[in-house]
Amino acid sequence: MRILITGGAGFLGARLAREILKRGQLNGQTVDELVLADLFPAPADLQADARVKSHAGPMLEQADLLKSGFDGVFHLASAVSGECELDFDLGMRSNVDSTRLLLDSLRASGKVSRLVFASSVAVFGPDAANPMPDRVSDNTLPSPQTSYGTHKLMLEYLVADYTRKGFIDGRAARLMTVAVRPGKPNGAASSFFSGIIREPLAGTHTTCPVDANVSHPLSSPGTTIHGLITVFEASREAMGGRLALNLPGLNVTVSQMLEALEKVAGPAVRARVKFERDERIAGIVSNWAKGSTSDRAHALGLKADNSFEDIIQQYIDDCRERPGYPAEALRGLS
Amino acid sequence: MRILITGGAGFLGARLAREILKRGQLNGQTVDELVLADLFPAPADLQADARVKSHAGPMLEQADLLKSGFDGVFHLASAVSGECELDFDLGMRSNVDSTRLLLDSLRASGKVSRLVFASSVAVFGPDAANPMPDRVSDNTLPSPQTSYGTHKLMLEYLVADYTRKGFIDGRAARLMTVAVRPGKPNGAASSFFSGIIREPLAGTHTTCPVDANVSHPLSSPGTTIHGLITVFEASREAMGGRLALNLPGLNVTVSQMLEALEKVAGPAVRARVKFERDERIAGIVSNWAKGSTSDRAHALGLKADNSFEDIIQQYIDDCRERPGYPAEALRGLS
Repeated sequence: MRILITGGAGFLGARLAREILKRGQLNGQTVDELVLADLFPAPADLQADARVKSHAGPMLEQADLLKSGFDGVFHLASAVSGECELDFDLGMRSNVDSTRLLLDSLRASGKVSRLVFASSVAVFGPDAANPMPDRVSDNTLPSPQTSYGTHKLMLEYLVADYTRKGFIDGRAARLMTVAVRPGKPNGAASSFFSGIIREPLAGTHTTCPVDANVSHPLSSPGTTIHGLITVFEASREAMGGRLALNLPGLNVTVSQMLEALEKVAGPAVRARVKFERDERIAGIVSNWAKGSTSDRAHALGLKADNSFEDIIQQYIDDCRERPGYPAEALRGLS
Repeated sequence: MRILITGGAGFLGARLAREILKRGQLNGQTVDELVLADLFPAPADLQADARVKSHAGPMLEQADLLKSGFDGVFHLASAVSGECELDFDLGMRSNVDSTRLLLDSLRASGKVSRLVFASSVAVFGPDAANPMPDRVSDNTLPSPQTSYGTHKLMLEYLVADYTRKGFIDGRAARLMTVAVRPGKPNGAASSFFSGIIREPLAGTHTTCPVDANVSHPLSSPGTTIHGLITVFEASREAMGGRLALNLPGLNVTVSQMLEALEKVAGPAVRARVKFERDERIAGIVSNWAKGSTSDRAHALGLKADNSFEDIIQQYIDDCRERPGYPAEALRGLS
């Protein structure tokens, strides 16, 4: 099989690539070639694998690559929420136009590629006529409150239409917020969900910009990658006639996250997090889903992480063995 | 006010134009100029009005016109369902690309135009995981089963995002199936909803391709136009924080339609309709909404037609007084 991962050099894309290379196959078929397309080249450990081809550059300039014929595609590349709010046209280009180029290129290749589109819990939002339920389900009416969420939702429907027409064999998996992410804090409003775990483990003091009772559906990187692969391998019939589903999320409050941190790493680590409300971030987060359910993903055998302790432990284990995790990440862990 | 109607030379667009010219104002402001953009020039009676400017040509070639600054826009232009199924790329161009050009042109004009996007009951459809309710409501999860319905739904969300960003002041009104349409039968699968009334009134025998118990939400042209203008004139607050709503539909079965025809026009006219099942059309129609509700439109004061007799009577009155209705349309009425 020849597989493409767009966004294949990013945090999730590279982890997905490592998992596919480790398995060696998808749906019982050997993966001979794994193409990683991203703005920047894939990490060295991936490029060292003979099956990997790394392509760096904007997706809109990769038409020849995209139409070269793939058995399977994981479409993860995307401008993120904050970027799209700051630069509307960049968002439309990076998300909408790039995905259309990908879909049309796959169609032009003559091969009906199996495709997983990484959508997002950001398709959900409150509106005055239709307040968001405490748990957003597969049947909740989406009402995105960001351009990013709007793009993801539009593209879910476009992927469904290309699939209905027989141009591709697509499906869309709505990712929950992924934590714990390694590396530095970034500009995303969700950055603190990782930061309040990652920074104290590294020995750094940090602030939590929202109240302790804020609740949100989270997923560890490992569980998220397992979800993407499972949705890829699911038959069309198993998708239940609908193509977009919620991946499982663990619904936790910030206080539960910090209690788990204390259990796993001790009170000294937990004490490195102070609450300092940031009205801008708290305002954005108040429009987000407080929790999710995922019946259709459960029907595929998928489950949320067992506990937030497990999610923290996965991060600690990753820091000890995985590429891409900085050496000083566990400096604060006695 | 300077107003644009895209699709302004078509059946609904021209009727909307005549209604606006008759009123002379929208939202209490005088309409000084009414631009009708369509593939073909506007009908003569409209061009005779000094306030009307007719622009013929593909929308994708009208960037200069579209960015010339409008106070209000009714965006009706669209490739229809059958066309989009036959020619996927034409549908994407005519619906998705053209609407993006319109939205970006309005944004570039520097004026925040009030815009009504004509969406469709075709955004709804059944899927295995989520069967369609007997009445599709404002809160029913859309699941389009055609490219046309997919485009309409994607564009509802895009209009909402341009509005959220402050580029336009948009809203989307989902039209129910409009009957009775004048003129000839066309290739649309819904053509018979008008045909089984229009043809017998013209003295022509016709067939009904679906069973008598088939039910569907219909709206007369007059009620549909009234709905579009009311949605245009509604304040953002009155839209209830959500931008797409179902226009009211009269939920009727084919047998109720024919009973109404007999009441209004007599048994001899009714007898010109024979049932001859067409599996292709019956199959398509079986995926359509059997009825609708429209609570949010009701809150704006909108109502469905009172009865199908009223809808037939409106058609008969139109044939006696309106441009665009052929002289021989009532030949079968004794």
